[in-house]
Amino acid sequence: MKEERVLSGMRPTGKLHLGHLSVLENWAALQDKYRCFFMVADWHALSTEYAASAEIPGKIREMVLDWLSAGIDPEKSVIFVQSHVKEHAELHLLFSMITPLSWLERVPTYKEQLQQLGEQGKDINTYGFLGYPLLQAADILLYKATAVPVGEDQLPHLELTREVARRFNFLFGEKVFPEPQALLARVPLLPGTDGRKMSKSYNNYISISASSEELYEKIRNMITDPARVRRHDPGHPEVCTVFTYHRVYNPERVAEIEEECRRAGIGCVECKKILAQRKDELLTPLRERRKEYEGKKGLVQEILQEGARQAREVAAATMEQVRRVMHLSEGEV
Amino acid sequence: MKEERVLSGMRPTGKLHLGHLSVLENWAALQDKYRCFFMVADWHALSTEYAASAEIPGKIREMVLDWLSAGIDPEKSVIFVQSHVKEHAELHLLFSMITPLSWLERVPTYKEQLQQLGEQGKDINTYGFLGYPLLQAADILLYKATAVPVGEDQLPHLELTREVARRFNFLFGEKVFPEPQALLARVPLLPGTDGRKMSKSYNNYISISASSEELYEKIRNMITDPARVRRHDPGHPEVCTVFTYHRVYNPERVAEIEEECRRAGIGCVECKKILAQRKDELLTPLRERRKEYEGKKGLVQEILQEGARQAREVAAATMEQVRRVMHLSEGEV
Repeated sequence: MKEERVLSGMRPTGKLHLGHLSVLENWAALQDKYRCFFMVADWHALSTEYAASAEIPGKIREMVLDWLSAGIDPEKSVIFVQSHVKEHAELHLLFSMITPLSWLERVPTYKEQLQQLGEQGKDINTYGFLGYPLLQAADILLYKATAVPVGEDQLPHLELTREVARRFNFLFGEKVFPEPQALLARVPLLPGTDGRKMSKSYNNYISISASSEELYEKIRNMITDPARVRRHDPGHPEVCTVFTYHRVYNPERVAEIEEECRRAGIGCVECKKILAQRKDELLTPLRERRKEYEGKKGLVQEILQEGARQAREVAAATMEQVRRVMHLSEGEV
Repeated sequence: MKEERVLSGMRPTGKLHLGHLSVLENWAALQDKYRCFFMVADWHALSTEYAASAEIPGKIREMVLDWLSAGIDPEKSVIFVQSHVKEHAELHLLFSMITPLSWLERVPTYKEQLQQLGEQGKDINTYGFLGYPLLQAADILLYKATAVPVGEDQLPHLELTREVARRFNFLFGEKVFPEPQALLARVPLLPGTDGRKMSKSYNNYISISASSEELYEKIRNMITDPARVRRHDPGHPEVCTVFTYHRVYNPERVAEIEEECRRAGIGCVECKKILAQRKDELLTPLRERRKEYEGKKGLVQEILQEGARQAREVAAATMEQVRRVMHLSEGEV
């Protein structure tokens, strides 16, 4: 049994896009070294999506299929849905009693996101939205994860988790929780097909599960160097989104493509075709795996059930210890 | 089976005093009309007492013994400890996602208590302290209580509960929760033995479980009319705490005592003796019941176990419905 534990999760947003794929590749690589817990953060999703919760079950299913297709392996890792493991709620409540309000109010993303999502017409100034970094702390510490793969922007959240762990251990006089370390993943920043941030709301994304046709179509419509109007105009790869994609997905040929573009040796149409072929090759095994999982009726449910069972086992052991040091065990009255 | 449900609770503060007794008498009277859930709010206690949680189990035991001695009957009512029913934490978390932060910030007691307890050196400006009225809402609505015995000062909390119920029912399109009504209890305000508010921290209280000796001693030391220095000085019952007690506990003789006091027909020593005798009579059956429960080893634990079992049954049914309307049921993925 691998000793060190990793926890990571994603909100159920449905089908994932290429921006997520590098995160999943990173997860997949961790599976051999760590005991990994990969969580569908459905309770977290409620903090912004409570008004559209009917869509959540379908989104969970689609996202988990993408995870599986990208090589997250239920034989190696625990794949589960947060709300199926009630201990997350209990630990969150206990943490809430010892966590200064100011720690949450000062999370850098808090005010930012409030405003951003407010502009999208979402009314998310709720108690739960303020507390979601604390729910994350509970998610991580419930499994005594020692390492958490995060992006730079999530470092403040992980720091909060570490502070909560320290405070708990100090107050109750026992080192119940480790202080998890960041596994800073080198995830290449992939822009959307129009050069802006890749996002479902901009409709500038390419799904992991896109068919070859969709893929070619999306890439064909990508925005390139606006200064290159005619075929024989020289291109400027540094401003071209297609070129950014080549850099990520086509490292062997990127130098050649840059040169050809600059001297107008290759046109945008051809350049896109090369990218689409390459990307199609890369996505083919994922599509095949997805088909396999989709084909077996009830398989995703089974995987999530087994994942929840394993997660609960670990969570129950942690909570027993938590209740003991807090003098909340049933037997103690 | 009684249809209408009542939920009420107390934080585990250990042995109760006469100020609590009238609340318990009120609870006891509700038992025949309603299906009553009486809850030891140990998670709530953490919001102010997290640094002293080691004392909680003993305090639970002593408090429940007082409940039982005052006639709260485990054959009629469900007596349980909040933390033994994990569904409270889950419902609290779900409510947190739909409850505007401002609803909690505007609870009238919030800022007041923050300051008061801050002056006592307690650092309670936590996320959980802000959220405790929402935990109360979860406590009440988990049992679909339709009536809640409260004092005037708790009306804003109950109003919050009603608002949360309305918002939940509206957002998820089904009338899951009733809007509980206040059962305003006419609880006489009993001052402490020194005329100030009765409180453990002032050491001016009389325990429900006080022995005859303690009772006589406490009453002997009560502060009376300071203007009545000598036995033959006439007294002023309106400023005398002993007289206030006569009014509450000795309604048959209160007119006579008032008259005798004013005309110096009765001295303070005698007046106190009459009160102590009367109070001793009233507390005798409670003491006897307490002794019975204390005598049977493990009985309190058994009562709480059975209470938790019954509470969980109701809580589980509510949560099943909650998860269904929120599309969080395990089967739905």
